Amino acid sequence: MRLSPAQADEYQREGYLFFPGLFTSAEVNVLNEQVPKLYAEHRRENVREKDSEAVRTNFAAHTYNDTFGRLARHPRLIEPAMQALGDDVYIHQFKINGKAAFDGDVWQWHQDYGTWFNDDDMAEARAMNIAVYLEAVNEFNGPLMLIPRSHKQGRQPAGHDVSTTSYPLWTIDNATIARLVGDGGIVAPKGPAGSMLMFHCNLVHASGSNMSPWNRTIVYLSINACTNHIRRFQRPEYIAHRDFAPIRCLPDDCLTRDEPRAAQA
Amino acid sequence: MRLSPAQADEYQREGYLFFPGLFTSAEVNVLNEQVPKLYAEHRRENVREKDSEAVRTNFAAHTYNDTFGRLARHPRLIEPAMQALGDDVYIHQFKINGKAAFDGDVWQWHQDYGTWFNDDDMAEARAMNIAVYLEAVNEFNGPLMLIPRSHKQGRQPAGHDVSTTSYPLWTIDNATIARLVGDGGIVAPKGPAGSMLMFHCNLVHASGSNMSPWNRTIVYLSINACTNHIRRFQRPEYIAHRDFAPIRCLPDDCLTRDEPRAAQA
Repeated sequence: MRLSPAQADEYQREGYLFFPGLFTSAEVNVLNEQVPKLYAEHRRENVREKDSEAVRTNFAAHTYNDTFGRLARHPRLIEPAMQALGDDVYIHQFKINGKAAFDGDVWQWHQDYGTWFNDDDMAEARAMNIAVYLEAVNEFNGPLMLIPRSHKQGRQPAGHDVSTTSYPLWTIDNATIARLVGDGGIVAPKGPAGSMLMFHCNLVHASGSNMSPWNRTIVYLSINACTNHIRRFQRPEYIAHRDFAPIRCLPDDCLTRDEPRAAQA
Repeated sequence: MRLSPAQADEYQREGYLFFPGLFTSAEVNVLNEQVPKLYAEHRRENVREKDSEAVRTNFAAHTYNDTFGRLARHPRLIEPAMQALGDDVYIHQFKINGKAAFDGDVWQWHQDYGTWFNDDDMAEARAMNIAVYLEAVNEFNGPLMLIPRSHKQGRQPAGHDVSTTSYPLWTIDNATIARLVGDGGIVAPKGPAGSMLMFHCNLVHASGSNMSPWNRTIVYLSINACTNHIRRFQRPEYIAHRDFAPIRCLPDDCLTRDEPRAAQA
């Protein structure tokens, strides 16, 4: 999958691209079938919400689940990332964020690169997030909110918030958010299960709580240019990966083709 | 102001009616000028958020502020209420809810009549809320979420939640919400400052937190039929009023006409 020149320009200018319904229902079903058993396990890769047993985020499923391992090498995700970053790429972080009906808590305003710089010593902002919606995202189930063009203003000062939710995060102060929103506004891309959203690692984003009866599971592939790999290893490997080998894509039908996962190249 | 037969039917069927931009900018400005000084006062009528000094709700401003006193007798609010309730009406509760930028906290799923029945011994669900938006309401600043037609299913069992926010509330369990939303969906009426929303006291509603840089102040007039007045006085009078005299409306231009407030009839 190649981005058109117009899409590539839009990504650089706005900081994100949205592809509603990029994956078919059949492909989404294959992924969704895996989630309950992943979330049911009691292992360090599952971080639960502050006030409930609901899983807030699952880390690194691609390293121990064959189906998500295929997704992490899917050409509809990896090829646009390689194109936008102009380099071979690897997975820096892999999350399945729950945002469960009624229980899903907020993610405060932040840039992912803030964390990757502060915690992992990633040298440059040559990385991105790719989100795959495993359920429909609407205005009520805690959609991701993006501040368009905020990535153009570089890395913002951030404070380490260890109390608001169950997961520590480098977050951005209100005055900065007000200024960035004044310039770029806020968008919240909504769409059916199977939609894909790619956004720059310096794009400021957040999401509200989910008070609706609809789950809002999203897979996030955080993708880094191979030559930009991290240089500090203070976080556990399942949170900040250390395998910097270039990803080799699987065929486009890898999620629904019924055969064993190909060996990693 | 009269509701058309179609509007009156819609209110009975759906449980709410929305009038975008019912008040002019000039009228909204007159109201907004009063809010900062009301919120700045340290008095029992101001309830602040759990984790900040931001005002969550101000009670009974119509009893001690001339401008909001006029709003409480405005024909664009009171006449539709009289028509829908088929009776003379009085103000049971009057709130200016802050939902401040960044700080505004959630209101859990609830019916107002649950509280009015449990706490105030209001005999029947012959009451409503009228909301006047003092700022534009968009998808990001914590819009009110309504479950259409939920009022048709009567008063739901409720539990007294005294911990989630700074204000105790009779709230409805998740299974009931899921069932009601399955039937009616969720709507969040969005519109400019000056918009008016009227909804049945048994309509189930909630609102999310406000993570945006935009305030979302809303005035709520809770209006009860005079013959349905409350019979228990355990809550303070500034929260559950005890003046059951029928409201006599002021002229339609009462907010912008520069003369002293007319004496209460």
